[in-house]
Amino acid sequence: MPVQLFGRRQVTDIIEIPERSGTAFRLAKGETLIVIDPRGEQVADLLAFNAADVDEVISSGRTLDYAEHIYLTKGDKLYSNRSNVMLDIVEDVVGRHDFLLTPCSFDTFKHFYPDLEPHRGCFGNLAEALDPYGIGADRIPVAFNCFMNVPVDGASGRLRVLPPISKAGDHIALRAEMDLIIGLTACSAPDSNGGTFKPIHYRIEPAQTR
Amino acid sequence: MPVQLFGRRQVTDIIEIPERSGTAFRLAKGETLIVIDPRGEQVADLLAFNAADVDEVISSGRTLDYAEHIYLTKGDKLYSNRSNVMLDIVEDVVGRHDFLLTPCSFDTFKHFYPDLEPHRGCFGNLAEALDPYGIGADRIPVAFNCFMNVPVDGASGRLRVLPPISKAGDHIALRAEMDLIIGLTACSAPDSNGGTFKPIHYRIEPAQTR
Repeated sequence: MPVQLFGRRQVTDIIEIPERSGTAFRLAKGETLIVIDPRGEQVADLLAFNAADVDEVISSGRTLDYAEHIYLTKGDKLYSNRSNVMLDIVEDVVGRHDFLLTPCSFDTFKHFYPDLEPHRGCFGNLAEALDPYGIGADRIPVAFNCFMNVPVDGASGRLRVLPPISKAGDHIALRAEMDLIIGLTACSAPDSNGGTFKPIHYRIEPAQTR
Repeated sequence: MPVQLFGRRQVTDIIEIPERSGTAFRLAKGETLIVIDPRGEQVADLLAFNAADVDEVISSGRTLDYAEHIYLTKGDKLYSNRSNVMLDIVEDVVGRHDFLLTPCSFDTFKHFYPDLEPHRGCFGNLAEALDPYGIGADRIPVAFNCFMNVPVDGASGRLRVLPPISKAGDHIALRAEMDLIIGLTACSAPDSNGGTFKPIHYRIEPAQTR
């Protein structure tokens, strides 16, 4: 299902992440990852590790410190725990993503959905997908949760997990600033996507196209 | 300098963390750590690791998810990356702490204070203090930053680092829910404490006093 998204000459295939699952893959420096919400109102948890040394990992704390705001969008950079830029948000038609919360897990499912069958969540899906790269479950930090809508009330500090504002076909594009291992999911938690489970699409643009 | 803070019969000595430095120590399950701002408007970055397995570590993402608010205070619990409660906030006379930002480092100093001599910051101080416990610098996550005042504007998402609202002698008390390695600092960054560098005091109450 190749689509002409950005007027590029050469377009790579779109890859589908089925609902409630996850994957991991290499993203070379200069390549751009386009994460697409094909049906709207779905979330994709994104992790990044330095491919040459997986102890260097995406860091919400460093990123929010440098960005000085919590709602990241085009022009913002995602930093590692070593203060290096891992990803640069080069395009974003949604403008609302979360970088406060850790991927949902078996334990968070039991907590938030006591009446549902617990699911291993994006945490379990990421742990399995990252295992072949030598990345253990304990190394999963706060994810950059594409399309996740977590508004914060500034006065009370209250946060809410609301349905995403992304519409069908909306996307965010992130260019790699170093060789990376990426973990990416199609969200498993009812609250994050308005109670529906849907796939996520992604596509990788070669380097030097932007 | 022992002080009677809570009407307890037996009071342990207060330990001083000198300005712009850090320390690490064991805190047994049931013991309560009292972090005191002796002069007011100073910040103490706090980290916690499971003493039996340091791959289990304090997690802002899990904690904020469970708490459903970003300004943690009495009654809130600090969770690990494995969804276990590490610390329980049993007393808090300040009510404003930060759990969004990673401890400042040599790199963040260069970024935010280009005209000052860079300092290794709480990150460097914690890395040195935690090294004897087998905890490397790459394992330092978002800290629970006691007294750090980081209001978030809910509409724009903008965050600001303002002077703490803590007054001289104010404290927060956290009871350990498992055997822990604690990292604790007296903040090194001008913005976090209104441009002054001051010590932090702490005290450990034995178990079963609360």
